[in-house]
Amino acid sequence: MDFAFDSRTTELLDRVRTFVDGRVAPVEEEFAAEVEALPDRWAFTQAPTLKRLQDETRAEGLWNLFLPGERGAGLTNLQYAPLAEAMGRVGRLAPAAMNCAAPDTGNMEVLAEFGTPEQQEQWLKPLLAGEIRSAFAMTEPDVASSDATNIETRIERDGDEYVITGRKWWITGAMNPDAKIFIVMGKTDPNADRHRQQSQILVPRDTPGLTVVRGMQVYGYDDNDHGGHAELVFDGVRVPASNLIGEEGSGFAISQARLGPGRIHHCMRCIGVGEMAIEAMCRRANSRTAFGRTLGEQGVVRDWIAEARVHLEQLRLLVLKTAWLMDTVGNKGAHAEIQAIKVATPRTIEWILDKAIQTHGGGGLSQDFPLARAAAQVRTLRFADGPDEVHKNALAKRELKRFAAE
Amino acid sequence: MDFAFDSRTTELLDRVRTFVDGRVAPVEEEFAAEVEALPDRWAFTQAPTLKRLQDETRAEGLWNLFLPGERGAGLTNLQYAPLAEAMGRVGRLAPAAMNCAAPDTGNMEVLAEFGTPEQQEQWLKPLLAGEIRSAFAMTEPDVASSDATNIETRIERDGDEYVITGRKWWITGAMNPDAKIFIVMGKTDPNADRHRQQSQILVPRDTPGLTVVRGMQVYGYDDNDHGGHAELVFDGVRVPASNLIGEEGSGFAISQARLGPGRIHHCMRCIGVGEMAIEAMCRRANSRTAFGRTLGEQGVVRDWIAEARVHLEQLRLLVLKTAWLMDTVGNKGAHAEIQAIKVATPRTIEWILDKAIQTHGGGGLSQDFPLARAAAQVRTLRFADGPDEVHKNALAKRELKRFAAE
Amino acid sequence: MDFAFDSRTTELLDRVRTFVDGRVAPVEEEFAAEVEALPDRWAFTQAPTLKRLQDETRAEGLWNLFLPGERGAGLTNLQYAPLAEAMGRVGRLAPAAMNCAAPDTGNMEVLAEFGTPEQQEQWLKPLLAGEIRSAFAMTEPDVASSDATNIETRIERDGDEYVITGRKWWITGAMNPDAKIFIVMGKTDPNADRHRQQSQILVPRDTPGLTVVRGMQVYGYDDNDHGGHAELVFDGVRVPASNLIGEEGSGFAISQARLGPGRIHHCMRCIGVGEMAIEAMCRRANSRTAFGRTLGEQGVVRDWIAEARVHLEQLRLLVLKTAWLMDTVGNKGAHAEIQAIKVATPRTIEWILDKAIQTHGGGGLSQDFPLARAAAQVRTLRFADGPDEVHKNALAKRELKRFAAE
Amino acid sequence: MDFAFDSRTTELLDRVRTFVDGRVAPVEEEFAAEVEALPDRWAFTQAPTLKRLQDETRAEGLWNLFLPGERGAGLTNLQYAPLAEAMGRVGRLAPAAMNCAAPDTGNMEVLAEFGTPEQQEQWLKPLLAGEIRSAFAMTEPDVASSDATNIETRIERDGDEYVITGRKWWITGAMNPDAKIFIVMGKTDPNADRHRQQSQILVPRDTPGLTVVRGMQVYGYDDNDHGGHAELVFDGVRVPASNLIGEEGSGFAISQARLGPGRIHHCMRCIGVGEMAIEAMCRRANSRTAFGRTLGEQGVVRDWIAEARVHLEQLRLLVLKTAWLMDTVGNKGAHAEIQAIKVATPRTIEWILDKAIQTHGGGGLSQDFPLARAAAQVRTLRFADGPDEVHKNALAKRELKRFAAE
Repeated sequence: MDFAFDSRTTELLDRVRTFVDGRVAPVEEEFAAEVEALPDRWAFTQAPTLKRLQDETRAEGLWNLFLPGERGAGLTNLQYAPLAEAMGRVGRLAPAAMNCAAPDTGNMEVLAEFGTPEQQEQWLKPLLAGEIRSAFAMTEPDVASSDATNIETRIERDGDEYVITGRKWWITGAMNPDAKIFIVMGKTDPNADRHRQQSQILVPRDTPGLTVVRGMQVYGYDDNDHGGHAELVFDGVRVPASNLIGEEGSGFAISQARLGPGRIHHCMRCIGVGEMAIEAMCRRANSRTAFGRTLGEQGVVRDWIAEARVHLEQLRLLVLKTAWLMDTVGNKGAHAEIQAIKVATPRTIEWILDKAIQTHGGGGLSQDFPLARAAAQVRTLRFADGPDEVHKNALAKRELKRFAAE
Repeated sequence: MDFAFDSRTTELLDRVRTFVDGRVAPVEEEFAAEVEALPDRWAFTQAPTLKRLQDETRAEGLWNLFLPGERGAGLTNLQYAPLAEAMGRVGRLAPAAMNCAAPDTGNMEVLAEFGTPEQQEQWLKPLLAGEIRSAFAMTEPDVASSDATNIETRIERDGDEYVITGRKWWITGAMNPDAKIFIVMGKTDPNADRHRQQSQILVPRDTPGLTVVRGMQVYGYDDNDHGGHAELVFDGVRVPASNLIGEEGSGFAISQARLGPGRIHHCMRCIGVGEMAIEAMCRRANSRTAFGRTLGEQGVVRDWIAEARVHLEQLRLLVLKTAWLMDTVGNKGAHAEIQAIKVATPRTIEWILDKAIQTHGGGGLSQDFPLARAAAQVRTLRFADGPDEVHKNALAKRELKRFAAE
Repeated sequence: MDFAFDSRTTELLDRVRTFVDGRVAPVEEEFAAEVEALPDRWAFTQAPTLKRLQDETRAEGLWNLFLPGERGAGLTNLQYAPLAEAMGRVGRLAPAAMNCAAPDTGNMEVLAEFGTPEQQEQWLKPLLAGEIRSAFAMTEPDVASSDATNIETRIERDGDEYVITGRKWWITGAMNPDAKIFIVMGKTDPNADRHRQQSQILVPRDTPGLTVVRGMQVYGYDDNDHGGHAELVFDGVRVPASNLIGEEGSGFAISQARLGPGRIHHCMRCIGVGEMAIEAMCRRANSRTAFGRTLGEQGVVRDWIAEARVHLEQLRLLVLKTAWLMDTVGNKGAHAEIQAIKVATPRTIEWILDKAIQTHGGGGLSQDFPLARAAAQVRTLRFADGPDEVHKNALAKRELKRFAAE
Repeated sequence: MDFAFDSRTTELLDRVRTFVDGRVAPVEEEFAAEVEALPDRWAFTQAPTLKRLQDETRAEGLWNLFLPGERGAGLTNLQYAPLAEAMGRVGRLAPAAMNCAAPDTGNMEVLAEFGTPEQQEQWLKPLLAGEIRSAFAMTEPDVASSDATNIETRIERDGDEYVITGRKWWITGAMNPDAKIFIVMGKTDPNADRHRQQSQILVPRDTPGLTVVRGMQVYGYDDNDHGGHAELVFDGVRVPASNLIGEEGSGFAISQARLGPGRIHHCMRCIGVGEMAIEAMCRRANSRTAFGRTLGEQGVVRDWIAEARVHLEQLRLLVLKTAWLMDTVGNKGAHAEIQAIKVATPRTIEWILDKAIQTHGGGGLSQDFPLARAAAQVRTLRFADGPDEVHKNALAKRELKRFAAE
């Protein structure tokens, strides 16, 4: 057992931190203003600042760090984890600047692992190059989609084509016109076994019958700076049969494969958010005076800071151990830990952000600080990929099986 | 001791509920859409739906219910409390429809109690008639304004005028062009005793030197449906000396007088929000099915619902008792209880809203339900009129004084 | 609505407080030492101090205050509630000194309401006189007895007798040799409807076949100062058929009738415990100095004190309202509120005691202060009469029924 | 970074688990009964079962595993940590059976590091051999002893002797007549610098002037199975000057050196308690049925189990990392982490125990399960070595120093 990072991690972490803190953080507001001023305010990938930063990271080898294997940086999950944390500190811009932003990372992983050579050539290549963006269309408005058998979207074979019919929402990134390709989850066989009913299929944005209805808001934010969250209608959308990813019935398995890395990336970035919040809380507490003492000299604020630190340290270690397990025993072997961090992370970071906000007074909720926006983002993770309650239920069943009745 | 409402309360409560649930709730979305479509989207008081509802409440005697004495409905705080709760269920529109919305209620109370006949004629009269709106400018961006001695805005006598210089933010309602009059808190004598330094003064919106800089956001909401939250700059603003409310040095005392009713109104409306959230949570739990059972048949969701009910019942009673104390021993005698409900209310309602949101899945955070917007509003109350921590500190000092050392 | 006590309550409360604080509190430790030194250390009712105090309360009309109707003081639940709170401040001795201690109060209520004249003559009369004590035997070691259908003890008719067979534990008071009569819950008809299977029957202590096996401990305490908690074995115990309370199959209904007053008495006494704990916390905080300031000058301790006060005020009001409901709409009409206070009370008081203990340092957990002992007692209330989770489940079902699906 | 144990740890852990689960757990109750039946019920070290187990561990090399260096097993903290966890599962007996029980471990460490050869010969040798026991006398009843400057016990030089005068309590182990030697903390120079006033000195149990006044209780436990917690009076106790440990004024530094390993041992054993509690909760939940389903099939119980697992995994990792830091950068370099685990551990385990108890119903609080006793022990750790609040304050100051004002 050893808690030190290896040399490659240390070296990359130093470079990523230098880049994020030195070159991304100072232009975060500028980027947001550019996005707002674009002809299409959803097309954040066209903001000059982002394009410039992407050129820099491409040139400096800080590009596609998330991707294992030859196509990417070839890092293990454990090596990538602290880099993702560093990106999370400026989460609005840094991941996109390094082509490490969700949902594209997950989509690239799926295409790299399950895509045909043709699918990879057509979609993975431009995604890896940062020329286009993508979305993953799973959640549906009318059912509890954490239960995959609830999915109502149909993917029906018709000759050489599949016909897709259904309604999706919370499709992150899909408001961006540069999101050229959607991976859509639906049922090819509602009568198959519980986890063999679903398939995933590639649907290009401009396919007839696909309508982008509107952007969903999260606490008043429409998140146009990372492509928003679209409601989509698929009304008899036809794509070639070759657009299917893997085989019919493999949709659930593919989504499980996707979830492991996806969740751990989210969690690591969240820890970066937590560090950002602790820093903001401390700086504020050192700055403000009320009733004759700085906030940082007041017991209750100190208690918050200490609690934040105590919780964040524990959380980070569990995320890192989970990454290590994924590397050593595989995503399946790390399933319980992946669920555990999925549950533990958002609420811990939410709590820290809440106290950081409270330390800032009203300003903490406003556009003048990144805290409320981060809190809204983190809040969504308590549902994303299934509500926490579903994961806790599964965790408990696993424990209960370990021990016989008294 | 008797926990039943008196007959006047029962009768009015029935009418208010009928109005709010029957006529306000159904048009809430229509109102919001109208506001968004106005030439000036901050001028929510010009929305036709609101104007129509106001005509109805004026005609039906459901107007100015908040105001004690002859000018208003003459209700006690205890009688008004459940009416405010009923309004809170549709908090975006019902209070405004009944001329019972903050911050105007507090401003009207101040003018009614401390204003000169001329001030009342010029400003209170149109406020009571609902012809204009108002704002209360106290909070400052650069200091912890919960400590009144921190206030930096200056109100300096110069002949027959006062000259006002300073910066304010979070001035709720002030983005609305119909907010014609601002009550501004500042220091007339920084060298006076701690609580005699401050004064309050009337500043008409169009006075030269007063600039409305921008609207503050709460999470991603700018709250244009109730006039937003403005940042204001007072750059040598001159008003007649007769605009002073009360005498020099009375500002702190006036603000204390204002806070009691203001807080209890907020708290009662919040309880209405809590009831709305419990109802939404139950309806949703009865509707959605996951893993073979409705959410309402699942233990964790039931636990949330029960906890929500148990907490809300306790909270309501403390708010009602506080209202009763204000009626029987006065605002000062009820000071500890006012602080207690100020602390207890927002967090209780936040928790209920959080669980209602979780029961709704992603939709709960979106524009499709009133939950996230309500959560953002309620969150602000943990700072408004001073952060909870300041009030808890005062509560504890009071307890500590009751008991000698061992 | 009126939050003031009526004059009878005010008068009695003043007398009870004077008695409890002035005459009971000073001799509490003396009483405990006497009990420990008795020939039978379980026979706490033979402690001279208790006998003397009982003589005083009998003489002064502070006896049997709990009992409504002519046999007792004739108080409503609402009138009795604050008196019970006052007793709870010195809960180890004051209720017994006033013949208002559980489980005798509940047993007397059952006998008064459901007993035959003969049963009342034989058992109720000496209980009301304080000459004997009693116990209520419901909980069983082998099943979750919160589900009444789980009860395994059999009460079988055999000619003019009933034969009782089963095992019970946590039978509070039953270690005291002066507990001469036990009310036993068992099944007379396991095949009847769910809530008609059970009956209650009177079993004198000295009946052959009844064995007192041992005393159960609560966190190391055996609670000999109020008769302990016995494990009992009924091995073919025979009693006359006339010992049945009510009719066969009425056991569940009788226990429900018992639970209302029983719970609210517990809750009111608990609030007295909470007040005692706040007082102890404040006195300690005013006495101890660490790092240059008293504990009471430190923010975190102040936060605890304020939270304790804010929670306790809310809780008390809900308990009082529940008492009022029981008086006005009956125990059944107050069912939801009784469940709510059953859930809300122990955890609130536990939290306050925990912080009071923390303020006292190690001493807080020891025999030198009443805090740890009180915490152990309060902890048991989260199971007593069914675990909180059962009550919350029922509360939630009630809410869910109020609202249709979306 | 690597989360796997090294081979020595794996091998020892397997042996310790086999011993604890196979040979200690089955005789735990027997041991407790033996202790209770001893002529002196405080002399737990004379229980035959313990002596037999000690012979076995001595013979099998499972003795003194806690001690680094040649005198002990030579393990690092990181290697020892999981062994301590395994002992903690049967914490009442396993640590003593392996000569790894507090407070002797800390005393042996102090003597090994700071003792003179003579002190080591006289006291360390028999302690390492398990022939005698020891105690550490620091806490005082009359002051908040977490602030070392508060210590009132005096150690005054008088010729070739020191004279010790003061009162101590909560001196764990000191009720055991086999605790032959006490390490006493007192002030040699109240006028020296804050952390140079204190010294530590060896006082044999039978020194005239030293009185063992009484045993302190924790809840209702007197903990006679590990030597209780004594109140001691030192009334002019004289020992040779050579009994001083280190030099005058080094007492605070020695106690700091002691605290690191002491705390981490406590924390690791606590994690074993947490695992024991999760196992007990699951077994019970699988066994009991209420309302037609086992407890383990009910959502709220599952939520507890999942939460317990999620929290315990995070906590364990922080404890292990702290052990690694102590090994790699020293106790001082690990100071913040030691404080963090000191805060995080007891409350996490308390929570798990509380839910395990709730799952067990009333029995969970009784002598029939180890849960309530464990909860009482764990509760003391929120004060031991200073209350959590002191450590959180220090943690926060450290964070605040890292960041300048805004």
